[in-house]
Amino acid sequence: MGNPLAGVDTSDAPYVIVSSDTHAGLQVEEYRDWLDPKYLPQFEEWAAERHDHRRLVEEVNGEYVERWEQDNADGLPGAYDPAVRDRVMDADGISAEIIFADGDSVTGQESPPFGAGLAAGQITDPELAFAGADAHNRWLVEFCATDPVRRAGVALVPVIHDVDRAVKAVEALAGTPGIKGVMVPTMWHDKPSYGHPIYDPFWQVCAEAGLVVHTHSGEGDWDSYNENVAQFVLEVPFWTHRILWQLLLSGKFDTFPGLKYVVVECGSYWLGDLLWKADTTFGANAKVKKLNSRTKGLIKKLPSEYVGSNVFIGASTMSREEIRRRHVNGIDALMWGTDYPHPEGSWPKTVERLETDFREVSVEDTRLLLGLNAIECYGLDREALAAVATRVGPTPTRLNQDLSLRTPDDAIRTARWWFDDYGMAWPG
Amino acid sequence: MGNPLAGVDTSDAPYVIVSSDTHAGLQVEEYRDWLDPKYLPQFEEWAAERHDHRRLVEEVNGEYVERWEQDNADGLPGAYDPAVRDRVMDADGISAEIIFADGDSVTGQESPPFGAGLAAGQITDPELAFAGADAHNRWLVEFCATDPVRRAGVALVPVIHDVDRAVKAVEALAGTPGIKGVMVPTMWHDKPSYGHPIYDPFWQVCAEAGLVVHTHSGEGDWDSYNENVAQFVLEVPFWTHRILWQLLLSGKFDTFPGLKYVVVECGSYWLGDLLWKADTTFGANAKVKKLNSRTKGLIKKLPSEYVGSNVFIGASTMSREEIRRRHVNGIDALMWGTDYPHPEGSWPKTVERLETDFREVSVEDTRLLLGLNAIECYGLDREALAAVATRVGPTPTRLNQDLSLRTPDDAIRTARWWFDDYGMAWPG
Repeated sequence: MGNPLAGVDTSDAPYVIVSSDTHAGLQVEEYRDWLDPKYLPQFEEWAAERHDHRRLVEEVNGEYVERWEQDNADGLPGAYDPAVRDRVMDADGISAEIIFADGDSVTGQESPPFGAGLAAGQITDPELAFAGADAHNRWLVEFCATDPVRRAGVALVPVIHDVDRAVKAVEALAGTPGIKGVMVPTMWHDKPSYGHPIYDPFWQVCAEAGLVVHTHSGEGDWDSYNENVAQFVLEVPFWTHRILWQLLLSGKFDTFPGLKYVVVECGSYWLGDLLWKADTTFGANAKVKKLNSRTKGLIKKLPSEYVGSNVFIGASTMSREEIRRRHVNGIDALMWGTDYPHPEGSWPKTVERLETDFREVSVEDTRLLLGLNAIECYGLDREALAAVATRVGPTPTRLNQDLSLRTPDDAIRTARWWFDDYGMAWPG
Repeated sequence: MGNPLAGVDTSDAPYVIVSSDTHAGLQVEEYRDWLDPKYLPQFEEWAAERHDHRRLVEEVNGEYVERWEQDNADGLPGAYDPAVRDRVMDADGISAEIIFADGDSVTGQESPPFGAGLAAGQITDPELAFAGADAHNRWLVEFCATDPVRRAGVALVPVIHDVDRAVKAVEALAGTPGIKGVMVPTMWHDKPSYGHPIYDPFWQVCAEAGLVVHTHSGEGDWDSYNENVAQFVLEVPFWTHRILWQLLLSGKFDTFPGLKYVVVECGSYWLGDLLWKADTTFGANAKVKKLNSRTKGLIKKLPSEYVGSNVFIGASTMSREEIRRRHVNGIDALMWGTDYPHPEGSWPKTVERLETDFREVSVEDTRLLLGLNAIECYGLDREALAAVATRVGPTPTRLNQDLSLRTPDDAIRTARWWFDDYGMAWPG
């Protein structure tokens, strides 16, 4: 394992902050112009359903909706207006952002047609899944083209609905300025799971195109919640990061070494323990001896070794505890995100939040979490972004940080305690 | 939160060890005599399938099977022979045990008819689910009656297949000497999830009968693993403890305050983080404001407050790290277990394992984890077991422990860091 901190600037230069989790989308009716006209009848139905949904949310939670929208009226149109978005980013200290669909998480008014964004797995008609995705992607390409240095769009590719068509979609997106990744449905429902070989051509074309594959929280096993949203909230991370293990444990990162996967907005707290379990169970530990040899030889490295090279974490507005756990979860893999313009994120008070939460973190660690890991993961333009940061990025001093604080050389090894505890060799 | 360590004996008296996770079962053919004869045609099919299964395991992993069975030929018949079992328990330092189905986890030759044990959720015919459970239960009642002080049997009640019938089964089991709990299918498959009100009469009767409800690891989402057992191993804890949150977050422990639930053999490492998330998300944290009010009022206490009163953890052979995390996961809820006679457990070297793993643990904490929590959870006969322990239990000195070591008064509060970190009031 190389030292991810080598050469990282420890000066008081402004932070290049890349928000690894933001959203953009047109208001429902505006998607009409980007949709293949043959789906307009279904679109009218979809739009009416969306408006019904808003009315329902207003009935249940109207006061909250009204306050959120009034308080943030200036910035919310940045979901679709590039000029507003630039102003919001500047004020929030953000140099660049990774952009997902579904701008409005409060009343769902900025979702791609037919739910092709965060709920794409729930669409039952493959034609509609791709039609909705295509409509959003056409718009997203133009939106990101307004500033391909600061905007990295994540296109929608509902691969579970048709692998061949998904491969063609990725081929068409490859090389598009401002498009840096694709998002696949979080859950596979009644389709083959993501470890199945049927998807191999898709992983291959994503790796070749340099497009990072994502799942983003939003789906869950709704049939099991009995309308109790607490059940959803507590288990949504599982449903979101499940694909990570499907890819990793079935050897996809060995078969396609250029494949990168990011799990977005499901926290990072669960990662260290699963790396412990995976490293020790499929490495040094004898526990699976009674099972059979089917796990053997599928992966060439320890699971934790893929983190920071093939696997990254769109960790959104990390909790203080998750910041404290940064070395076990992956100091070279965690990527801060504001979740703009969603209310569960840090916008419009990102810098205030960073001032509090990063106070006791070294500058070098902070640079990785706030920007360098994302620049590495997505291949962003480091120099151009440094120039932007000079204008908008907060300095370490602004974040109340101690410039003399250094990350101990053994921080990662200490945090990944299982290597010593189980007597495993530390990866060289 | 009271002090669970108050009054715990810190002397060098032998430990009363209650193994919270053991298994017993007849060999396949032997179940014939305990089965309702009208299911004999299906039984012949089932028995043939079991024998085929053994042949398959021998093909894939024959060397391992042969060595395991040869090395442990003396003790393995304790799965069904009370005299052998007593000898095994004595030698392993165990005073009492909680007994689940499926004695043979290597080749599946001691499973109740039709898979009514650890895989009961996968049975599709409710008649067969109950017929298999009844056959095992009839035998289990007699088996436990051979020594109801040392044996606490867990009967099989496949509630997802028929709630009314399950209620009647619990009524019939209530008060049976040596029967202390019931096991329900781990997964609900296409049936309503366990938070659904349809199951309320069942939770009520279990609470009234003083029978502890269990789920035990074994099931998983096999359709998603593409025959890659690593996928199963890594996510089986989720499928096993999922019911805990179904019960807790839907308020079942408030509606039925006498209800106790134990999740067995899926570790405990995941618990602390989920308590942090649940306590802060459904307590002090503002994160769900944008959702709706459906989580409000369903539970009366913080989720962590149910742990140690309604919720216990059959933690099996805890890893050293899980022992270190005992105060965050629940020093009054964790229950050690040997998993006898399964090879993934500590038998036949339980005392050797305890000598190593509990070296740095206080005597008071150790007494809770090894026995007192189980005595409390299941209402076992403390005095009778102390007499057994005098004969078979290892002393703290034998476990290389420092008798002067005391658990700090603030151990639990320090471990449950989120109360102070989020500014939440500590439960009084």
